[in-house]
Amino acid sequence: MSTLRDIGEFGFIDRIAAMLSASPEVIEGVGDDCAVLRAGDRTLLVTCDLSIENVHFRRGAAAPEDIGWKAAAASLSDLAAMGGVPQFLLTSLAAPPEADTDELEAIYRGVVDAAQHCGAVVVGGDVTRSTGGIVLDVMVIGEAPEGRYKLRSGAKPGDMLAVTGWPGRSAAGLEALEKGIDAPALVRAHYHPEPRIREGRWLCARDDVHAMLDVSDGVVQDAAHICERSGLGVGMTSASVAVDPELVALCSETGRSIQDYTFTGGEAYELAFAIDPATCGDTLAAFRKEFDLPVVVLGQFSDTFNDVLIDGEAPTQKGYEHF
Amino acid sequence: MSTLRDIGEFGFIDRIAAMLSASPEVIEGVGDDCAVLRAGDRTLLVTCDLSIENVHFRRGAAAPEDIGWKAAAASLSDLAAMGGVPQFLLTSLAAPPEADTDELEAIYRGVVDAAQHCGAVVVGGDVTRSTGGIVLDVMVIGEAPEGRYKLRSGAKPGDMLAVTGWPGRSAAGLEALEKGIDAPALVRAHYHPEPRIREGRWLCARDDVHAMLDVSDGVVQDAAHICERSGLGVGMTSASVAVDPELVALCSETGRSIQDYTFTGGEAYELAFAIDPATCGDTLAAFRKEFDLPVVVLGQFSDTFNDVLIDGEAPTQKGYEHF
Repeated sequence: MSTLRDIGEFGFIDRIAAMLSASPEVIEGVGDDCAVLRAGDRTLLVTCDLSIENVHFRRGAAAPEDIGWKAAAASLSDLAAMGGVPQFLLTSLAAPPEADTDELEAIYRGVVDAAQHCGAVVVGGDVTRSTGGIVLDVMVIGEAPEGRYKLRSGAKPGDMLAVTGWPGRSAAGLEALEKGIDAPALVRAHYHPEPRIREGRWLCARDDVHAMLDVSDGVVQDAAHICERSGLGVGMTSASVAVDPELVALCSETGRSIQDYTFTGGEAYELAFAIDPATCGDTLAAFRKEFDLPVVVLGQFSDTFNDVLIDGEAPTQKGYEHF
Repeated sequence: MSTLRDIGEFGFIDRIAAMLSASPEVIEGVGDDCAVLRAGDRTLLVTCDLSIENVHFRRGAAAPEDIGWKAAAASLSDLAAMGGVPQFLLTSLAAPPEADTDELEAIYRGVVDAAQHCGAVVVGGDVTRSTGGIVLDVMVIGEAPEGRYKLRSGAKPGDMLAVTGWPGRSAAGLEALEKGIDAPALVRAHYHPEPRIREGRWLCARDDVHAMLDVSDGVVQDAAHICERSGLGVGMTSASVAVDPELVALCSETGRSIQDYTFTGGEAYELAFAIDPATCGDTLAAFRKEFDLPVVVLGQFSDTFNDVLIDGEAPTQKGYEHF
């Protein structure tokens, strides 16, 4: 017998994908940030994300509103990664019978707030009993306007790999919490991530953006997903990582580098995308002006190798592994 | 502070419903079997159901395929209850790292089988780690053809309350399992319930069916949901319960009555509906002919009282309570 720990999340998803049947209404099934579905004259994007107590969050450490917000943000970020417009959320909540309903209501309010923040509404779900901790599953249904969306599979050789915002902050915030280091901006990035909906829509509208996903397990691991689906490799350079002023102080205390957090930090919920090198400079300049948010080129895709390389070498740390 | 045990599933749902905002795209939000959503030229029905190990199922007792089937059937039955056509399923699965992937794959196959059986396809989901047992959340997206669906709220005074199939069998099957009584048909009803999709579609197409839901927590409790949403009461008579030959033998061993199982047995996944008394006889005769399935009138709705009464009295047992 093999266990989930042996084959990992993606090994198991491969086995599941093999048993699913095709349908003319399913434009894209398992394998991207969202499934893409046909519903009459609309193209729907759907996704869901589980958050489990003591795996994805700890009660007491995080405020209940932040637990709900982050659970919803993880799903909303998957919509952002395809360039979609989120519309409807369903929330499944399981909790032990002795759970405080004020706390559960605050968790739920975090989900509702994240939905509203992204222009969507919560339309229902399920509430039931758990034997252990709290379980939250947030499902998002959105739309790809004019049937337009970005997949992971469109990167071309020579495309640049760019990443929005501050991909290292969430993981750094978690470490700051664990080590009792005062770093409020990093902690906020960890507990209250911002789904990049507007940014995703903007990037989706551009023909020079060829592939996109959200960074949930670290830039190295998520860039590898673009590589795998596009049949390419990507070479990144550590010198291209932006100096994040919020990270500098933490690095001096933890002895780790900004590159470490940026390349392998999980739960960033930034967008990573492949973009045509000919227009990359202009597009990224326009992006920065539009959103007042950094966007940095970290590397370049190539068809001469299949892996993720940093400064020409295989990275020693790959990012977050779920099992 | 209040706990979930204090206020119960429906008390908590009332508190959640109060924090949700309206939207022109949300035709029906929290409070029915599915949410009803507008998506371009289509009317979508969406719902989700959590299944938690040692709450909704026990590994070892149930075959893994049946665990998956039943989790999916619970959600599919909610679609049936509105008269919808299920199209797409998302499945979230959490399991401990040491879980056997063959067993998990078999659970997933049960979900896929139930979807296919109902004409739908699994299009994705989430896989992650749990600290305790297995968690399954199945979300179904379906369609209400021509924007037609049945709510819980349409029952009229004088309408008859009718129930399809064998609402007592699932609960009886669980008791047979617990007591080691050989009753394969009852056990199958418990582990492998049949979502009444075709029956729901057929009933939905008829103007004399005024309200519908699926029986998941027992006929008494679910009939009370129709009453509450329609502002009515319902009087049932125990003599109208059909003699189920499969239940007779079990009753002699457990000392309980067929009425007991029928009125309060959970997880039946039969359809209960309010139907015009003028056409009830003809419609139910046509139903029986179409589906080779029983359908029985158990009572009549009234605007002279607000409760569920059996033989003129308040029932002592109400059905399944989640907390």
